[in-house]
Amino acid sequence: MLTIAYDGTRYAGWQVQAARRDQPTIQGTLERVLRQILQERVTVVGSGRTDAGVHAMAQRAHVHTRSKIPRERLLRSVNQLLPCDIAVLRLDEASGTFHARFDATTKRYRYRIFTGAVVPPFIRPYVQHVRAPLDVSLMRREAAALRGRHDFRAFARTGTSSRGTVRVITQLRLVRTGDELQFNIEGTGFLHTMVRSIVGTLIDVGRGRLPPGTIRRMLRMRNRHLTGTTAPARGLMLVFVRYGKQGKAG
Amino acid sequence: MLTIAYDGTRYAGWQVQAARRDQPTIQGTLERVLRQILQERVTVVGSGRTDAGVHAMAQRAHVHTRSKIPRERLLRSVNQLLPCDIAVLRLDEASGTFHARFDATTKRYRYRIFTGAVVPPFIRPYVQHVRAPLDVSLMRREAAALRGRHDFRAFARTGTSSRGTVRVITQLRLVRTGDELQFNIEGTGFLHTMVRSIVGTLIDVGRGRLPPGTIRRMLRMRNRHLTGTTAPARGLMLVFVRYGKQGKAG
Repeated sequence: MLTIAYDGTRYAGWQVQAARRDQPTIQGTLERVLRQILQERVTVVGSGRTDAGVHAMAQRAHVHTRSKIPRERLLRSVNQLLPCDIAVLRLDEASGTFHARFDATTKRYRYRIFTGAVVPPFIRPYVQHVRAPLDVSLMRREAAALRGRHDFRAFARTGTSSRGTVRVITQLRLVRTGDELQFNIEGTGFLHTMVRSIVGTLIDVGRGRLPPGTIRRMLRMRNRHLTGTTAPARGLMLVFVRYGKQGKAG
Repeated sequence: MLTIAYDGTRYAGWQVQAARRDQPTIQGTLERVLRQILQERVTVVGSGRTDAGVHAMAQRAHVHTRSKIPRERLLRSVNQLLPCDIAVLRLDEASGTFHARFDATTKRYRYRIFTGAVVPPFIRPYVQHVRAPLDVSLMRREAAALRGRHDFRAFARTGTSSRGTVRVITQLRLVRTGDELQFNIEGTGFLHTMVRSIVGTLIDVGRGRLPPGTIRRMLRMRNRHLTGTTAPARGLMLVFVRYGKQGKAG
């Protein structure tokens, strides 16, 4: 089991895609480096995809290998060969049946927006800049409707649901610190672009572009076309992925 | 008066140097952009230099201009033309006699070291990676000797003192958070490479390369050759510069 951090800025996302062989992906870069060290072809199976430009503090993935290289040495070699915007933070031995995607029980995402006049250079790749004044308490009331078990079809890119469109959001908090507003969203799983659609819609409500009650209406109507803006990828970070008992390191 | 944030990674430092015209400097980049907008030559006078690779959250500088462009519009134009690793955070009108260097009364620097196994990609340009175990309480006791008024000659690159080598350190705190150790140093002014020499020497003591009492001996002997390692530039950040009453925005 790999725990991976990456700055997604210059990647076409997590997943290797036949159609876009020209732009690197996180998965593809990891597979290339691991193949070089392990001297065998490996498939890196992630807990889920992240889109082009999305970052991760602790993405999880698994690989199968017959290699006898000690874990500490493997970790060092992998990080020496990886480009500086990807790092494998940990390598843990997992049970033979462990699956990074199917066994994932919880995920947390963070979306950062910066509301001050000028974005400091250090955080530019990691925030969306919103200049319009935002009614944060209205956004909090609006967000409350998302908590719990819902059909999130209205927030998903169509045609992407392999196991239906019902998900559970266990936490959704808006935290304001100085010129920054963070959306912390935790749940059992997320549909494609779901977090960015939620954030974009909440911002639209907060700046008065969409009326209060929009989220509730979207959940009821289950219609993608009602949705607000999809917030840009750069502000989104996969914070962690949790596993049930069978996913514990061996 | 300009308040400036920058990522110093790809710059030859703050100051325009005749000898190194090939590599950009922060000052040179600001002057080029301001000349383009104001249509007049301006000299950007900083509160002090920062070395190649050193960052700033809020460096201060002043310029004289006859331009009548409103401040808000000037701020927007400047940031549109600046590269993404420099941002002017504020523009304030100052009195005609205000001088960004001579009127500075306090500066704070932060030095960040990362002590975990693998540095996350997001903070790589801003930390020094130290793998050796550190005795932080020993470092704190050692650092205590630096507080107050001292001749810091032993911590300065020789031949750089225009106004002597006596300075006052008002605060020096080591803060540990998870895998990070931050050195926060505040004082009336700093000699060239002084903060990095202090941090490098404290790390050498913390990892057992230099004996406890080294700092006290260096202050007493005032001999540059006793000094420990100079910590690398990437970990250093100018946090803020304060001014007395005459430095207040007009």
